[in-house]
Parts: sequence; structure tokens; C-alpha cells
Amino acid sequence: MRIAIINPNTTSAMTASVVAAATSAAREGTELVGITPAHGVPSIESHIDEVHGAASALAEVQRLETGAPGERPDAYVIACFGDTGVPAAREAASGPVVGMTEAALSTAALIAHRFTVITMPPRTREMSDRVVRTLGLEHRVVVRAIDEPVSAVEDGSLHLLPLFIDEGRRALADDAAEAIVLGCAGLAELVGPLSDALGAPVVEGVSAAVAFADGLLAQGLGTSRVSTWAAPSASPAPEGVAE
Amino acid sequence: MRIAIINPNTTSAMTASVVAAATSAAREGTELVGITPAHGVPSIESHIDEVHGAASALAEVQRLETGAPGERPDAYVIACFGDTGVPAAREAASGPVVGMTEAALSTAALIAHRFTVITMPPRTREMSDRVVRTLGLEHRVVVRAIDEPVSAVEDGSLHLLPLFIDEGRRALADDAAEAIVLGCAGLAELVGPLSDALGAPVVEGVSAAVAFADGLLAQGLGTSRVSTWAAPSASPAPEGVAE
Amino acid sequence: MRIAIINPNTTSAMTASVVAAATSAAREGTELVGITPAHGVPSIESHIDEVHGAASALAEVQRLETGAPGERPDAYVIACFGDTGVPAAREAASGPVVGMTEAALSTAALIAHRFTVITMPPRTREMSDRVVRTLGLEHRVVVRAIDEPVSAVEDGSLHLLPLFIDEGRRALADDAAEAIVLGCAGLAELVGPLSDALGAPVVEGVSAAVAFADGLLAQGLGTSRVSTWAAPSASPAPEGVAE
Amino acid sequence: MRIAIINPNTTSAMTASVVAAATSAAREGTELVGITPAHGVPSIESHIDEVHGAASALAEVQRLETGAPGERPDAYVIACFGDTGVPAAREAASGPVVGMTEAALSTAALIAHRFTVITMPPRTREMSDRVVRTLGLEHRVVVRAIDEPVSAVEDGSLHLLPLFIDEGRRALADDAAEAIVLGCAGLAELVGPLSDALGAPVVEGVSAAVAFADGLLAQGLGTSRVSTWAAPSASPAPEGVAE
Amino acid sequence: MRIAIINPNTTSAMTASVVAAATSAAREGTELVGITPAHGVPSIESHIDEVHGAASALAEVQRLETGAPGERPDAYVIACFGDTGVPAAREAASGPVVGMTEAALSTAALIAHRFTVITMPPRTREMSDRVVRTLGLEHRVVVRAIDEPVSAVEDGSLHLLPLFIDEGRRALADDAAEAIVLGCAGLAELVGPLSDALGAPVVEGVSAAVAFADGLLAQGLGTSRVSTWAAPSASPAPEGVAE
Amino acid sequence: MRIAIINPNTTSAMTASVVAAATSAAREGTELVGITPAHGVPSIESHIDEVHGAASALAEVQRLETGAPGERPDAYVIACFGDTGVPAAREAASGPVVGMTEAALSTAALIAHRFTVITMPPRTREMSDRVVRTLGLEHRVVVRAIDEPVSAVEDGSLHLLPLFIDEGRRALADDAAEAIVLGCAGLAELVGPLSDALGAPVVEGVSAAVAFADGLLAQGLGTSRVSTWAAPSASPAPEGVAE
Repeated sequence: MRIAIINPNTTSAMTASVVAAATSAAREGTELVGITPAHGVPSIESHIDEVHGAASALAEVQRLETGAPGERPDAYVIACFGDTGVPAAREAASGPVVGMTEAALSTAALIAHRFTVITMPPRTREMSDRVVRTLGLEHRVVVRAIDEPVSAVEDGSLHLLPLFIDEGRRALADDAAEAIVLGCAGLAELVGPLSDALGAPVVEGVSAAVAFADGLLAQGLGTSRVSTWAAPSASPAPEGVAE
Repeated sequence: MRIAIINPNTTSAMTASVVAAATSAAREGTELVGITPAHGVPSIESHIDEVHGAASALAEVQRLETGAPGERPDAYVIACFGDTGVPAAREAASGPVVGMTEAALSTAALIAHRFTVITMPPRTREMSDRVVRTLGLEHRVVVRAIDEPVSAVEDGSLHLLPLFIDEGRRALADDAAEAIVLGCAGLAELVGPLSDALGAPVVEGVSAAVAFADGLLAQGLGTSRVSTWAAPSASPAPEGVAE
Repeated sequence: MRIAIINPNTTSAMTASVVAAATSAAREGTELVGITPAHGVPSIESHIDEVHGAASALAEVQRLETGAPGERPDAYVIACFGDTGVPAAREAASGPVVGMTEAALSTAALIAHRFTVITMPPRTREMSDRVVRTLGLEHRVVVRAIDEPVSAVEDGSLHLLPLFIDEGRRALADDAAEAIVLGCAGLAELVGPLSDALGAPVVEGVSAAVAFADGLLAQGLGTSRVSTWAAPSASPAPEGVAE
Repeated sequence: MRIAIINPNTTSAMTASVVAAATSAAREGTELVGITPAHGVPSIESHIDEVHGAASALAEVQRLETGAPGERPDAYVIACFGDTGVPAAREAASGPVVGMTEAALSTAALIAHRFTVITMPPRTREMSDRVVRTLGLEHRVVVRAIDEPVSAVEDGSLHLLPLFIDEGRRALADDAAEAIVLGCAGLAELVGPLSDALGAPVVEGVSAAVAFADGLLAQGLGTSRVSTWAAPSASPAPEGVAE
Repeated sequence: MRIAIINPNTTSAMTASVVAAATSAAREGTELVGITPAHGVPSIESHIDEVHGAASALAEVQRLETGAPGERPDAYVIACFGDTGVPAAREAASGPVVGMTEAALSTAALIAHRFTVITMPPRTREMSDRVVRTLGLEHRVVVRAIDEPVSAVEDGSLHLLPLFIDEGRRALADDAAEAIVLGCAGLAELVGPLSDALGAPVVEGVSAAVAFADGLLAQGLGTSRVSTWAAPSASPAPEGVAE
Repeated sequence: MRIAIINPNTTSAMTASVVAAATSAAREGTELVGITPAHGVPSIESHIDEVHGAASALAEVQRLETGAPGERPDAYVIACFGDTGVPAAREAASGPVVGMTEAALSTAALIAHRFTVITMPPRTREMSDRVVRTLGLEHRVVVRAIDEPVSAVEDGSLHLLPLFIDEGRRALADDAAEAIVLGCAGLAELVGPLSDALGAPVVEGVSAAVAFADGLLAQGLGTSRVSTWAAPSASPAPEGVAE
């Protein structure tokens, strides 16, 4: 099986790091293919960036879907906290699509009664809130934020460990959190040391999404075509846009 | 005051009709400017279309914001049920931004205890559900759908009146609905005859949004810049995209 | 158009101040008429006071509705945080009725992802909670309170500014609030200085309600008569009460 | 112990019937005193009527509280579906106050996973919805309505049995209801025959409230005076109203 | 009437103390019978213990139900915070069954707008959360915990008073709580002194459950047999288990 | 890796069939071990049965955990709709534990906006409702039931296909469902033909849970020991029970 991990931003270093981090979560025989969009924004720090990220992710899915059947990905993971572009990707892809946020939250719910998302920067808290509410988990989740831009993790995230340990300790003490969800792609390096420091599981969404996507494939499950995410056959290409 | 009504699709006939319909909702002295994107999709029928619609709407807001201060709109209305692009537009615009869906729902809540959205086509029901849940109104709203594409209303919507009357009667009988929200831009012609047929108020979202935008301006209120929708000053333009 | 602003308490100074504050929110050509009840309580500090306030507000609406058609208000605003009497006024009034609380909350939701109500005194927190829950906004709103009676603002509210700034700062820091809703009529003087001090929008409910009422009138929308708020034609006058 | 059952309307026949119906629910040694207001409306069919009903109920509680300590009721039940006036009565009364709606709903939740309220007339559905939401039971309760005015039960309710059986059967079949809550005072005669016809428990709220009030007294529990329902010591009597 | 209070653990001292504490809540003529399981765990500190507690409680109910009709309890109270075994007991018992947690929460909702559960130890917080959510009261309840095992109250709970006072004060100050629910059986001694120290009502669940059970009996109400809690007539005894 | 699939009932034919059905969902190299309890009930049709099922499942987990490290399962799946015993198993197991219901619901949420659980028999609807609410998915899920006992699928489920097709069609038409969750273990044979008949994905929970468990192992994630599901080290064995 081949799972495409779509990084909705154009920073290929980040793509490489999320693919590397998720490798151990994939099934034996599953190939992970990191996709960095040809066009877009270097990091997704705002709702404006999310619009570009969704367009980038969608364009990449559409491009990959035009490949020969044997070359098309069997499933997709969208590697941006907030799951920008996931609904559109579901319509465009022939196989299932998993967002890293929904995967992280549903995974954390299997191992912790209450848990806390630590996202960054604070202005993106709404993206976490949005997915929490789409799933309905607000009674079990608190969203916290660290004041660093997403671009701060372009070359690794270990320098943020002290900030995450501090915020994580507050989560355990004040939110009754029993696990932490890392609220941004590109934080995979933190999983081990943060988990050790807190004595609590730390969930990284891209890995969680790869595991979910692999599981859907193994079960033969794909996106329902009944209504919401049916392939929009009649949808003409957007006018005047070269994609 | 000048309010730009952004139609996120490229069908200028639809822009004209929504502006015409909303005129009576605007304050005296408020100028409504209909904006049809240069690039995009002719109608928004899916989540894929929503991605393009959000990009189109955002591009138009950004273009208008580069105008001389006296030429920039004072506020914006996004005229697509589902409020695609509204969060990004909030960041990009110097003035307030109102989505037609959030405006329609909050307006209906002022005049009816329970109410029903009639949207189209059925596959877009998720867009209504999404805004209902963002506001938290699920205990008072039911979402119904008619099986017609958005493109069916390109040249007017009166031919759909019988379908809306049938669905509206079911809403009153089965949902305990006391008002109807029209779940699509371009349905303004239905307001009068549908309201007459049902004996219940019918809310059209673009008009509702214009009234809300005008009201925000009169109160001197604009989008909070504290965090979520702050202007993303450092956000570079997307690479390799001519917008 | 004529909008009656019903102050449910008998303190005419408060009526005057809320009307003055809301004037700039009204449309050109809209006349605001402040109504101080002939009978009732001087300020609404409790649920007991709310019962009297609802009766006072209803009596005034009923009195105004007996006027000649040209003299009847086209719409009503109930100027008491908690929206006491609004449902009854909807039944009694021929035009739409807007509560200051529902208007303030729906307005804040257009400009802020999360926001905080600062009400007073603490014992009235339930009134805010009640309207928040009627709208379903509890996932986006926190209710805070200042320990001052409503009567403290009879002659103006600027002396409370330091208390509101302190509480507002806590709201921004601890609630992730991005806007403040003033949880009491008679606080309009605080809008400017509090907004300046916090760097965040401050919503005043009577102004918000006037804007909403004006908008409903412009859209030709009134209270649904389908069921809940139909005019109770058969309802006899209460026995033994001279109202 | 003495429990006052306050009928918020002025129809003494209804007071007599609710007291009679609740007698078997009271503890031995508990005296039930039915109170018919001196002033008010003959039945509560609307939100306007609710305003009058709340004022009537409050006035009666205040009158009873001025009695000698040995003559004051130890607790109160408000016998109107929708619990109009209950919060104010809590502030005015020295002992606990129980609404028939909150009591009926919490009682039904002890004996049925899901249940249905059958209220009347349809326009009062909002009153049921309101209490359901105050308690948070919306995931377990459906509200249905029969198209009869409250005044129809002034002289007994057995003539409505066929309508309640029909609606109750729909509730069991379509709502997965396992018990029925009678959504109006004055329906106690229906409890036995409706329960027999449906093979399901039928909860009558005044009886449920009497049992709850008796239970609070036995536990030595009264309304919390910490904040919301503290006695409003400083609250002056309403001006110009002889109560 | 005879109400069996089932202590799901095997510590007879705890049974004796909860029966003693609940006596004053029972109606005159109601006999309270404390039941200590023959088999099980000495205290319920975990979900593992809950499984054993449910089995113990169920076995005792089944044993009591085989008694002669005149000897069978008329109703049951399950005296463990978290209401372990209550659904099964409902199926097994001929009379109604009330859990101490559901009773405590519904009782507190009658006397306080918002309230706080103080449970112990922290790892059992999920049990409180679970019942809060089953009832839907999460908008009015906060759950706090004290770090003591349930076994600490085997010989009385007064030594924990300072801890409960501290936590209770935090609840009033930080949660806007207006009443306290004791989140564990065996804490009845705290009711008086904690209530005095806080100036707020303190609800003890076993007493609350006895009052509710007594009330159900007086109303002639029992568990609905329509579906969920019908007696499972065809259910064979578990194989290989001597119960 | 070795995943133990615990069938909480004693019917070994059902164990064999659920293991067989889940095999294709497991990762290469993962060994699935079906566990049929030595003691318990032959099928779980009620809350009484759930108590026995939880005890059986817990006993088997505890027995397996006493094995040599190399023989202990790495993870567990509890194969009963309603997830009976899952919290206790989490405490007892050294590896992660996944319930088939939580796994099925979270899986369906990845491929369908709204979906419907079809469970059996109707009296077990509460078990589905309970897990839906624990996850918070009630805004996206409807629970339907077929009137057959669980024991009806002891020797296969294909004879129930027509009933599931009928109910599934109602779900698609009336609930706007876009996928079906099979609400009982032992229905795996239905996945293919039901999916074909409805044109919609059908989720089988044991397979979903195996995939989730495998994914947790691949991510190195296990049950949080911070609080709720910490191993209860001090918990003595239940007295007088030979397990």
C-alpha cells in the first residue's frame, strides 16, 4: 500500500521530518510518500494560510489521482493541525483521507480520559477548537497554546521542549489531563522527551493518521460516496487558474 | 459606508441577483458593491468548490484592501451558504466580515424558537451543519435539503418554489419549525412567495448579513485583533501563485 | 421607523442613558423612544426583580400596542441583561422584539472566536448563563462578574472602569477571550475606554439590539406567529390587576 | 411539615385537583396546602401568561412568608409546567422550592433511559424545551404536544385520554421513549389509564415535586444562599404596585 | 416500605455508617436495610473495583429478589459514587433502583445553579464525569478530587474535614459553585461541619437516593419495562459461577 | 505483536468468528488470539449480562497478564458492543485496550459525515448511546435497533441480512446516514453484502479495534497511567471469589 502524506505547506524540510517521524507507525509493506506542494505558503500560521494550504493540498491530491492506477496513493494523510483541506481531499481522492488532528484526538481518547492539546501559535487555537467540536470531544479536551510560530519548527522542535514541558505540567495539574496531543506537525521529536518528562503519553498526529489510514485500507474502508464527500463528477475545473 | 458583497463563485449573474436582493436590507447611505471573482468556480457544489471559493473570496478581499483608504470597503459580506473563506477574510480585511450563514441563523433565532434550514444540494448539508455547530444552535435547528444543484439558480430560483413549499411544510409539521432559512445564495426571489405559502418568516442570508455588517459599522465594531483573526503581518505571499 | 427601547426598571435616568448610547447604532430615520415603566422596581438585581421587570416591560409593550397604528413602535428592544420579558413581549408586540443579551452575544460571535461576558452583580450570573445556553454559545463564552449592584450605575458607570479593566485582562489572559460583552444595561460609557485599555472590542447590548431590530425591519422580518410566539388571541386579561 | 403547592393561575378547581393528585406522594405528616393566587390569569397558555403566573406565584410566596414562623410553609411546589416563577420563589422563600417540570424530568430519568414529554398546547413546547435544556437532558428527552388549551383540563382531563394514548404510542414507537412525562398540571387523572394503555410509567410533575420537596426537607437541604438565589435583602418593593 | 441500601463493597462498617446517615432522609414507616455483599472488594477505588462492585451489588439484588414477596425490598439504593451496577440492578429488581450519584446531582440542581462534586481519590473522577454526562449536567457541575483513598473513610471521615473545607472554598471561589456534592459514600459525617464552614448546602448522595426511592414508591413509579431495563427473562444464569 | 481479542461471553463459536473476521484488519506479523472466558454468560443481551461480561473480560485479562512477559498480549480488544469492561481492562492490562464500539464510531467518523449504528436487540440501544456520548458524537450518529437477540448470531448472521438492509435503507433516507456501524459483535459476515446493497461503507467494530490496537502499538502508545486508568497497585483481590 502507498500512503501519501500531504504537507499543505511548501517547506520540504518539514515534509521530510513528518514522513520520517511517521514511518514507524506504518505497516510493514506500506510505503509513505511525502508530498510538498509546488505552490503555497511556507508555513500555516493563520486562516489565510489555511486557505492556501487547502488549495495546495487539494491540488496535490488531484495531481496524484491522475496517475496510473498502480501509481496512485491508496490513501492520504493531511499533515497540518486543523485538518485544512481534508473534506475537499476526501472528494478528490479515490482512497480514504485522514487528517492529523482528527486522528490525534481519536487516538488520545483511547488512552486517556481527559487530555490537552498544546498547539502553536495561540492564534491557531481556533483550528484545534474546530476539530474538537467536529468530533464532539469538548467535554474531554482542553486546548492550550505556546507563543511560537509554526515556522519555528522548520529545522526541528527540540529547542521548544522546555516550553512544552511547562505547558504540559500545567495541563496535568490544572486540566486533569492524562495525555498530551501535539498541536502542530513537525513536533515529532518532542514525543519521547516530553512523554518522559511528564510521565504521560504524547500523541503525534501524523503518526496517528498514518496508523488510521493503514487500518482503513486493511478493512477495505473508504470515504462514503453517499452524499457529503461523493466525488463531484460534474464539477468543472476552476476558471482561469492553472493547477 | 461601502459594503462589498463577495460572491465566491464566478457567476456574475448570481452576484447581481444577491446584491439586488440585499439592497433593501442596507442602511440609507450604505453602498453595496457586488464582487465577482476573476478566478474560481462557477458555483459551489462541493467541498472542492469551497476550497476554490475560499481562495477566490480571499483574493478579492486582498485586492480590495490594497485600494486607497477611501476606496476600500468598510465591511464585507461573504455570499455563500457555508461561509467559506470567512475566517481568512476576517484576517485580511480592515473592516468586519459577516458570513451569510451565521447571519441567517442568528437572525432566525431572534424570530423563531425552532427553525429549519433548507439547503441544496443534499451533499452540502455538512456546510450547514458546520455553521450551526460553530454557533451552537443545534438544539433549535434542523437542516433539510432539496436535490437540486446550486447552478440551478443561476438564472433565478422561482421555478424551485414548489419544492421549497413542500419541504417547508414538512419542516413546520415534523421539525416544529417556525421559520425557514434559505440555505443557498441566489434564492432571494423565494422569500416572499415561500413566506406567504407557509405563513412563516423566511430568512435570506445575504440580506441578513448586510444588515449585520451595517450594524457592526454603526457600532464601531470590527474583527477582534487579539488573537484568532489578527492580521497575519508576517505571512508571506504564497509562492508561485499569481493572485 | 420607530424602535421603543423598554427599560424594565423604573429608573428614568437609566432609560435616558441607554437611549443616548444606542443612538449612533440606529439607522438614519429611525427614531428611538425610551420607555420607563410606570410601575416596577428601580433596578433589576435578582430573579424577583426580573419577575417585576418582565411584568413592567410587558405592560409597556401592551400599552404601546394600543396606540394608533402610526404611533405604535415598529420594533422593540428590551434593555435588561438577561432578556427578561422578551418572550412575552414577542407575543404582545406586532413588530419584532430583540433582547440586549441575545443581540450582544450574537454580535460578539461575529467578531471574536471566544469572548467573555462581564456582568454584575455576581448573583445575576445565572441570567447570562441562561441566554448563553438558549443560544448554545457555551463553547465560546465565559461569564464573569463584578461585585457591584446594578444600582451602582444609575448615574453613570465610568467609576467602574478600573474594575472592568482588571476583569477584562483576566478574561483575555485566562479565558482566551478576544472580546468583552458588557453584562448590564447602563454601562455604555465603558465601551470606549475599556476597549482602549484592553485592545479588544467591547460589545454593548442595547446598541447591538437596536442594530438588530433595525435590520429585521429593513428585511421585513417579524416574530414568527406559527406557534411559540403567536399572539395569544384568546388570552383574557389577568383578573384583579390594573395594568 | 407543610408544603405549599402554588398554582400560578387563578383557577381554584385546578388547584384543588393538583393537590388531591399529589396527596399520595407526600410523606405521612406532611400537610399539602393548595394556593390559588388572588390575582392573575385563569390558565397559562402563553409566555404572556407566564409573566403573570410568575408574578402571581411570587406574590403568594411573599405573602405566605410574612406569616408567623409556625405558619409559614416549610417548602413550596410551583405547579405549572415550565416552572414559571421558580427562581424568584427560591429567593423569596425561606424553605426550598421545587418546580413540577424539573421534578418530573429528573424523576423520569430514574426510571427510563429515554422519555417523552407530552405537553399542551403546542405553543408551550418552548417551556418544556427550556427546562429540558436547563437540566441538560436533551439527549434523552423528546417534547411532543397535543393541540388543546390548558383551559381544557379545568374540569378534568380524562376526555383527553385518547389523544394522549395516540401521542404516547407514537413516542414509544418513534422516540424510543420508555416513559411519558405529562406536560401540564391538571392531568393527574391520566396517570393510571395512560400508563395502563401504554405499558409504560407516566410521571406527573406535581406529585414528583412534592416528593422531591419532602425529600429536601428530610435531608435538611434548602436553597443555596451563596449567590444566585440568595435572599435579595436590599431589594425594595416595586413602586406603584399593590402586592 | 423497605428500601435496601446496597453497599457494593464488603466493608460492613461502611454499610452501617451509610444506613445510619440516611435514616433521617427516609419516610416514617420506611425501613432501611443495609446490605453488605458476601463477596467482593473492601472498597471501590478503581474501575477494576467497580466491576467487582457491580457484580456484588447485582448478586445481592438477585438474592433479595428471591425472597418471599413480603420480604423483598420495595426499592434499592446503590451506595457507591459512580452508580456502579445500577443499570443491572434495575433489570434484576422488581422495584425501582436509585444510584447515589444521580440522586445527589439531581438534588443539588434543585438548590444551586452551579455546584461542585468533591470526590476521592482523583483517579475516580471519571466515575463522576460519567454520571454528570449521563444526566447532561456538565454545564452546571465541576468535578474536583481529594487525594485520599476510599478506604480512608472506613472508620469515619471527620479527619478529612480540613481537606474538604479547602477544596470547597476553591469550588466556591473558582467554580462559582453554590453547593457541594460529596463524591463518595461514607462521608456523611462531613455534611454538617462542611456546610457550616462553607455557608453552602452539602449534598450526601445516599440520603438523596433514599429520599428519591421513597418518593418513587409513594408515586407508584418503578423502572420502565418497555425496553432498556426490562427484566431479561430469557437470560440464563452465568455458567460456572456460583452466585 | 500479539493482540488478544476478548469475547466477554462464553460462546466460543462467536470468538472464532470475530477473530476470523478481524484477521484481515491486523498487521502482518500481528497474531490475533481469541479468548473465550471460562466463566460467564453465553451472550450479552442486557445490563445484567454486561456485568457478567465485564467480570469475565477482566478475569481473562488478569489471567493473561500473569503470563511470562513474552506470552502476555501486547494489546487487547474487547469484542462486545457497548465496550463492557474496557475501563477495568485498561487498568489491568500492561498494554493498550480498545473497545469495538469506540473504535467503530471513531472509524466511521473518518469516512462519513453522519452515520447510523444498527444494534440488536432494541433493549441494548442504551449501550450504544452510552459510548456515543462518551465520545461526544451524538450530533453525527443515530442509533437504530433490530429486534433480534444477540444469540441469534451465534451460528452466523447472514440470515439477518434482509433486516439490516431494510433498516440501513431507512438510515440513509431518514437519518442522512452515509455509513452504517454494525452494533454487535458477530455480524462480520454482513459487511460485504450490506455494503453492496446500500452502496455505503459498513464498519465492523472488532476489525476497527484491531486496526486501532495495532496502530497504538506501532506508535508506542499505551494507556495513560497518570490517573484514571493507572494500575491499581494497592487493590486487593476480591474476597471470597475464586477467579
